[in-house]
Formats: sequence, structure tokens, C-alpha cells
Amino acid sequence: MSRIFLIGFMGAGKSTAGVLLAGALDLPFIDLDAEIERSVGQSIPEIFASAGEDAFREAEARELRGACEMPDAVVACGGGVVLRDANRALMRSCGEVVYLAVTAEEAIARIGDGSGRPLLSVDSARMARSILDARLSLYRTSAHHVIDTSGRTPAEVVAEIVPIVAGLPVSEIDVRAGAGYTVTIGVGVLDSVGDLVAERTSAKRVALVTDSSVDALFGDDVINSLTTAGIAAQRVVVEAGERSKSWEQAGRVLDAFAEAGLDRSSAVVALGGGVVGDLAGFCAASFMRGIPLVHVPTTLLAQVDSSVGGKTGVDLTAGKNLAGAFWQPSAVITDPSVLQSLPEAEWLNGIVEVVKTVFLQGQEEVARLERDASRILLRDEHAVVDMVHACVRFKADVVSDDEREAGRRECLNFGHTLGHAIENLAGYGTIPHGVAVAEGMRFASRLAEVVLDAPIQTGRRIGTLLGSFGIPRVTHEFTAADLKTAMLADKKNRDSVIRFVLVRSPGDWTVCPVDDKVLDEVIEWWRTGFQEGGIA
Amino acid sequence: MSRIFLIGFMGAGKSTAGVLLAGALDLPFIDLDAEIERSVGQSIPEIFASAGEDAFREAEARELRGACEMPDAVVACGGGVVLRDANRALMRSCGEVVYLAVTAEEAIARIGDGSGRPLLSVDSARMARSILDARLSLYRTSAHHVIDTSGRTPAEVVAEIVPIVAGLPVSEIDVRAGAGYTVTIGVGVLDSVGDLVAERTSAKRVALVTDSSVDALFGDDVINSLTTAGIAAQRVVVEAGERSKSWEQAGRVLDAFAEAGLDRSSAVVALGGGVVGDLAGFCAASFMRGIPLVHVPTTLLAQVDSSVGGKTGVDLTAGKNLAGAFWQPSAVITDPSVLQSLPEAEWLNGIVEVVKTVFLQGQEEVARLERDASRILLRDEHAVVDMVHACVRFKADVVSDDEREAGRRECLNFGHTLGHAIENLAGYGTIPHGVAVAEGMRFASRLAEVVLDAPIQTGRRIGTLLGSFGIPRVTHEFTAADLKTAMLADKKNRDSVIRFVLVRSPGDWTVCPVDDKVLDEVIEWWRTGFQEGGIA
Repeated sequence: MSRIFLIGFMGAGKSTAGVLLAGALDLPFIDLDAEIERSVGQSIPEIFASAGEDAFREAEARELRGACEMPDAVVACGGGVVLRDANRALMRSCGEVVYLAVTAEEAIARIGDGSGRPLLSVDSARMARSILDARLSLYRTSAHHVIDTSGRTPAEVVAEIVPIVAGLPVSEIDVRAGAGYTVTIGVGVLDSVGDLVAERTSAKRVALVTDSSVDALFGDDVINSLTTAGIAAQRVVVEAGERSKSWEQAGRVLDAFAEAGLDRSSAVVALGGGVVGDLAGFCAASFMRGIPLVHVPTTLLAQVDSSVGGKTGVDLTAGKNLAGAFWQPSAVITDPSVLQSLPEAEWLNGIVEVVKTVFLQGQEEVARLERDASRILLRDEHAVVDMVHACVRFKADVVSDDEREAGRRECLNFGHTLGHAIENLAGYGTIPHGVAVAEGMRFASRLAEVVLDAPIQTGRRIGTLLGSFGIPRVTHEFTAADLKTAMLADKKNRDSVIRFVLVRSPGDWTVCPVDDKVLDEVIEWWRTGFQEGGIA
Repeated sequence: MSRIFLIGFMGAGKSTAGVLLAGALDLPFIDLDAEIERSVGQSIPEIFASAGEDAFREAEARELRGACEMPDAVVACGGGVVLRDANRALMRSCGEVVYLAVTAEEAIARIGDGSGRPLLSVDSARMARSILDARLSLYRTSAHHVIDTSGRTPAEVVAEIVPIVAGLPVSEIDVRAGAGYTVTIGVGVLDSVGDLVAERTSAKRVALVTDSSVDALFGDDVINSLTTAGIAAQRVVVEAGERSKSWEQAGRVLDAFAEAGLDRSSAVVALGGGVVGDLAGFCAASFMRGIPLVHVPTTLLAQVDSSVGGKTGVDLTAGKNLAGAFWQPSAVITDPSVLQSLPEAEWLNGIVEVVKTVFLQGQEEVARLERDASRILLRDEHAVVDMVHACVRFKADVVSDDEREAGRRECLNFGHTLGHAIENLAGYGTIPHGVAVAEGMRFASRLAEVVLDAPIQTGRRIGTLLGSFGIPRVTHEFTAADLKTAMLADKKNRDSVIRFVLVRSPGDWTVCPVDDKVLDEVIEWWRTGFQEGGIA
């Protein structure tokens, strides 16, 4: 146990929860705002009024440094403590930072009339929301842990924090594919990348393939972890974005492996999202006819889907993902806490795959996602870890059954037939992958109603879940002919009949060829839906 | 049975063997020179003297056309019949062409004083050899079959021809690697590529990857065979030579696959030598994460070695063969008759791998190669088929034991440690691969004497065999330091100790790390050898 810093928007309940948490952990409690008032000899509104915000921030930084020199304690911080880089770095280096998340609405409701809260003196929900949005990513990236406090009493919040700061168990999921490997899931396992790579690959030398964005966030930490484990690590950084997933870029990455002195006993560590995983995976598969690969996925999509199963690939001039290899990793290291820094658009791409997964899994998993949706929206640590764990378990199970996509694995294509088609027609990169797949799931639900007589309830639940996560509808116009041509290009088709994964009810899916007449009818239903402003 | 044309240098015994063969096959016999003399009413020297060679060639062409309009027969042709393209095409299209091979020395001995042989009237061994060399490739590429007549009586020659024109059995060798596959070996199986591809892959669409040289020789035949079998075939032709084995070229080939409409159920047919096999194989492994591959090797090296075992690869900017995949073919179709068109330099590259193989195999195989060496030099069909068959059987066995080169397969590296090093040091393409490996086997033999106390006899037999096939010595100068650095770069090394495959006696090999002192001593022995004009 070390120092605990509680951060979050005003009204998140940091002081109340802090007192209770200090009691539960048998640590002293420090309220940073109270310490400032005491040392300056003025109330916070007075400091703001007389000396200005800068003076207050100086005092706050000084008190924070003071708290860090004292024995371990629970420290409740002011809402703006994260505004200074130095404060964020200091907190992360000398304790565990817990972000108490709350929706803007609940924060405002808790503050009441706002007396004594300088920044909210001209109280309005709009202003609270705009401050919250601006600070949101600062809170998330400062935090080691995120706890949703919405609708929870302070005692309930503390009950959530205690096991987390004690260290949530790291879980392991085995995949029976390739030589067999383990997905290690846990908050903080990013710090153990070096030891895990050493243990699972015996490599003395690795190339760390990552992109410029992820490198800025986690590159140094992972390099340090590798070096500490006695592994010589060479960074190979590609530009962030799909354009790096090219045949030419793969050639440059392979040349970089050779220049870094990699041999058959070396390994590749892929740190990033789907693009990095696909690119680095293909390069690991192709270097000296294949060297060990470790995935360290940093996006939700990569954690719940692409890091497990051995699919790797790059784009050709002729089309997306046309070149690649099945190359199973030697290990997957999944740290859900890295998802706190994920931009909203990428987060949503992953959420759509989660929705897809639970509807393939079954009733229980759909119900749990419906129940946890609001917490997941706030990226609450317990809820996110549970969600990632459940999805990986399912993916591992499917892949273990069907490594080369000859049977059951095809179910993972749910929503992707129309999804790929509209991504393609709109021009890749125009419609986000998740948004396109979400549309594909809505479309396939309607098909299931027509073809399999599936209950309307199934499609409604899919639509409602996607809506509750804020997945936007697609507003492009496509002709039926274009859609059919694009869907025919799907790799899953056989002999010019378009095949869909159809979900009758949670966990009950099938792969069906769909005849032209039905397809025309449902395409018309779907296209008309837009003109009416949405279908679901 | 159809028409049989006997071709070959004067003195090869075409007329004598032709009479006996016609008897054995119960066919009429036509001596084309005799027919010309009869129709013109002059002896051949008289025709040459009075009307000139052109008039003789006209008469010869006319009589050949006449023979082709008659019922089936054994036709003995004059030595120069192959000089006209039209004659060669006519013979190949309306019968089976058998080249009776003979060394220049024996041809001259048989001709005796040369009376009645116009082109040899100023008799000299040198002139005979120069005519022979000029015509050699015409004979070989005209022939369906090649029979060595040196040292054989006409009756023995006929006994060799009879089973060949009746159709030598096609043999099949199974490889237990990947999903398991069969190597089909037989003279003429090139005509069955279509049926075999259909049977082994079920593909309805293929890309035929080949190079410009091979395409000119066999491209049309293979495309016809595929089309006849109901397979849509798209030709993908790369420039002949190692430069086509690049990452960039692989990207272009993959784009061509996509443009040709290949999907997961399509196949790639690799028609060519090692470069085409490695490139097409890697592209088959990488297209849509792997589609079926059929090797149709057209060089000796590819037939006896690289087409079996699933190694594929391309060169990177950083080095040769650094990218690739293990991708086992669905079938290998090996027609030894295509080797008749192989340029001498490429033939020698393959012969070195044959020598390597028999010394890994055992006493019996070495003895057979020693016995057959002179026939193999003349590319005698029986001897070549036996040699290819024996080498494929060994390679198939080794690969079935050790698909991923974790153990026994390493033996195939015999001669390659020094071989790769000197190829590399001299600049790739300067020293032919086979010549470098031959040097490596000589070097490794000396190492075996020093390290394993191997009998001197082993190295002598290796040197004698290599010499009898005309493998030249390397005359470049290398420093000991450069050699050691280059050998250390070998993929087979572990922890900076150079490892060699050492052969104590035929069939008795081991992989040994060799210490620095011994290495220096043998490098010195080898380097001094050059100054003395050769070691063996």
C-alpha cells in the first residue's frame, strides 16, 4: 500500500469518500483544499478573489509536494489539481491515483447551490459539462484507476476502491492455437511486459513495434520494463493510422528488424491497436520465416478482439487486408488501464465489437452489458476489466475451436458483411469501422427477422445498447446495386451468394446465404430508415 | 506408340540403333539420309559438292515431311536435322523425339576415318567438339527423351529406349508436412499439370507465376493444360533472375493475384526455378493469409531441393532471404525432361546439391552417383530420373521428420556455412551458389578430418565427384577475418560459435560447433590451397 490520491470533478465525493477510505485502509487523511486554506489563512473563494487562480495553483502545488513528503495517506485533491503537468507526474510517481468519475448531471446535482465552489459560481449544467469534457482526458490519463461513483453512496465507492488499490487479481486465459499461449489481463500488467516477454519467449533481443501516438504514452515504460528484464529492445515506430498498414511499410519494418540485429531467437513486441498488431504480427510471421510475437494491445478493439487469434495482415494497393498470415502470438499482455487514454472514437470502435460479442455469447452476457453500460461509459475499472475479460474468454474459446476460420470462427463476422461494404463504398476511413459494423448488426437483425423469424426483441436490444453507448447512425446514401456488389466482394462468400451471420436471440446464431429478393427487401427497409431519421 | 525420331550427332549410332529399335517395336524403319540420296539420285557428299548445303537441307526437310505423312515408323535423322526450327517443331508434334547422346571423343572414335561424312572431312577432335557444343542445346530442347549411348552397344541402347517410349512409370513420393502432399515425378508430367492441380487443390482459378525465360519455354503448354482441365489461369510473369525475389516484387505479384480475381479457393502454380518458387510460394502464403500452392520446378536445384519442404522467401534491402514463410505446397509436379533445356551453369548448381544429398544419404547412394556420373553429364533420361527420384525421396524424408528445421533438417546445410559466406563476401551473384557450396563441402570435409578424425577418403570422394561434374574451383582471395565474420552471420549459429555440418563418411553426419583455433587452421589450409592451384 502506498499513498492514494483521489482526483475528479468537483462533486465527485472525493472528500467524503476519502475520509471513509482512510479509515478502511488505516491511513491518515489529507484534504488538500483544507490544507491550502489553513496555510494561506483564507478560504478558497477568498484566495481566488484576492490573489487570483495562479496564486491558488501555486499554493496547491506546494501543498501537494508537502503531502508527498509525509508518510502514506489518503489525499483528496481539488478538481483542478490535474491542470499542471508537474502535479500529475508527482502524483503518479509517489502513489496510486484514483479518478472518481461522475456524469456532469450528477456532479451538478451533488454540488447543490454551489456556495464555496469558485469555478461554478455562475452555476449552469452547460458550464459544468464543458469543464468536465475539457478535464476528462486529464483525469483519465492521470489515473491508475477509474471508479464510477454515479448512483453510488460514498460507502459503496470505498468498497469498490479498496480491492483495486490492494491490487485486483491478474487473470490468465489460455488459447489453444498455434503452440498455445496465454492472455494475461490485469490493471498494471504493462509494467510486467519485460518479465512476461522473458518468460514466454526466452528472447534476449526484441523489436518494440508501436506507433507515434502510443509510443508517446507508453513507449518509455515498456522499454524500461524490457531493459530491466535484461532484454535488449529496439524501438520501431510507425506513423499512427491505417496508412502504416501497407506492404511497403512492412518491408521497412522488416529491414529495421535486420538492422536491429534480430535473429531467429529474438521476438517482436507489438504495442498498439489493430494497425500496429496486424503490421507487427505480419512482420513477425515473415521475418526469417517467423519469430515469436507478443501482443500488448492498447485499444479496446485490439484487447477484446484483434490481439487474440493470430490474424495478421497488411493492405495491398488492390485492397485492404489482402496480404497476411495466421501467426499466433507467444503471449498477449492486456492492461485495461491503458484504455483510459483512448480517444472517444477509438473507444466506440471497440464498444461495437463488445456488443457484437455478447450477442454471440448469450443471454447472461447481454444482460450484464446492459446492466453495466453506464459504468462502462465512464470507463469504470471494475466494469471495463470484467468486459474485457468476458470478451477475451469468448474469443479465446472460438479461436481454440477453429484456428483457421473454417467453421465457428465465422460467427465473429456478425455485422461485418454490410459493415465492410459501406466502409468500402464510402471510401475507407470515412465511416469509422465500429459505426459501420453497428449498422451491419442492425441490418443483420432485420434479416434475421425476415429469414429466421427471429423475435423483434433481439434487434431492439442491439439497437438500444448501441444507442446507449452513443454509437452514431450512418447517414450516407447508398444504392441497392452498389451495396450488393460490395457485399459480394466479401471473403466469406461462396459461389456468388451473399452469406450473413444472423443472430436469432443472444447466443443463437447461424450463417445463412440470403437470396436476392429478401436482400432487396431488407436493403430497401434499411435505406428508407435513413430518410425517416433512423431505424432502431 | 507413335512415330519415333532418332536425333543426335553423327556417330551416335542412330541408323544401327534405329534398325534394331524398329524390329523391337515392330515398326518400319526409315533412314532419312538414305531417302534423300534415293530421291535426289546422288550420295550426300555429292549433293553437298554440287548443289550446296542449302539444297541438301531443302531435300532433308521435304523427306521429313514425307515421313510424317507415312504410317508410324522409326525415323533415323541426319545430324543437322535440328538446325531448322520447322523440322524441330514438326518432329515434336508428330512423334516422340529421342536424342542419342554421345561424348565428342566417342563420336569421333566411332566415325573412324570419316569417309562419307561431309562435315567431318577435315577431321579433328577440336572441330567435332565445337560442332557438338553448338548443336547440344538444339538436340536437348528438341528431344522428348535423352539417352546416353557412350560405352553402350546398339542393342543396349535399344533396351534403354524401349521402356522410355512405352512411357516410364510416373512415381509419387509423399511428404508428411503441412496437410501432407505428394511429389509426382515423371517424364512428361508437365502435360498433366492441369489435371493434377484440379485433383490436388480443387481450384477453379489459378495464377501461374513464372519468369520470362521459363514462360517462353513452357508457359503456353502449362496454360493449355490448365485450361483444358477447366481452370481459369492468369499468367504472372516476372523478370528472370534473383532481382525478382524482392519485397517490392512480391507486393506487385500479390496485387496481380487480386486483379486476377483470386480468392481463398484459388491456387498459385509456381513454374520455374528457386527464385520463382520462393517468390510465388511466399505470395501464396501471404495472399488472404494463405492459399494453395503447387510447385512445378524447372531447374535441377528446384527439383531435388527447393520445391520440397515448404521454405519460401524473398530478399530484403537488409539481406538475402530475410523475409519468408514456411508454406507447404498442395502438390509438387516434377518433370525431369524439362531439365534438358537448362543452361549449363544452372545445371551445375543443381548437381552440387545432388552431391551434397548423396553424402548425407549413405554409401549406396554415393556409389550409384559415382557409377552414373558420366551418363548424368549427358543428361541421360534414365540416370536423371533416378537421380531426381533419389534426392526427392531423401528430402521428403528429412522434411517429414523435421518440418520447421528444428533438428535433422539442419543437415541440408552441409557445405552452406562457408558457401554462403563466400557468396556474400564476393558479392551475391559473383560466385554461383553451387560453386560456393562445393567449396564449402571441400572445406567441411577437411574440418571433419581435423575435428572428427574422419577418413581422408571421404573428402577425396567428394572432391573427385565434384571434379567429374566439372564444378570449377573458386579463385577469389578472402581474409580469414572476413570469412569468420561472414560465417558468424549464418542463421544456424547460436551464441557466436560457428556451427558446421560435418560428414564423417557417407550417411554419417553431425552438427558441430568448431572452435576458433581449428577454424583458423583449416581456413589457412583452404586459403593456401588456392595458391597451390587447388586442394582436392
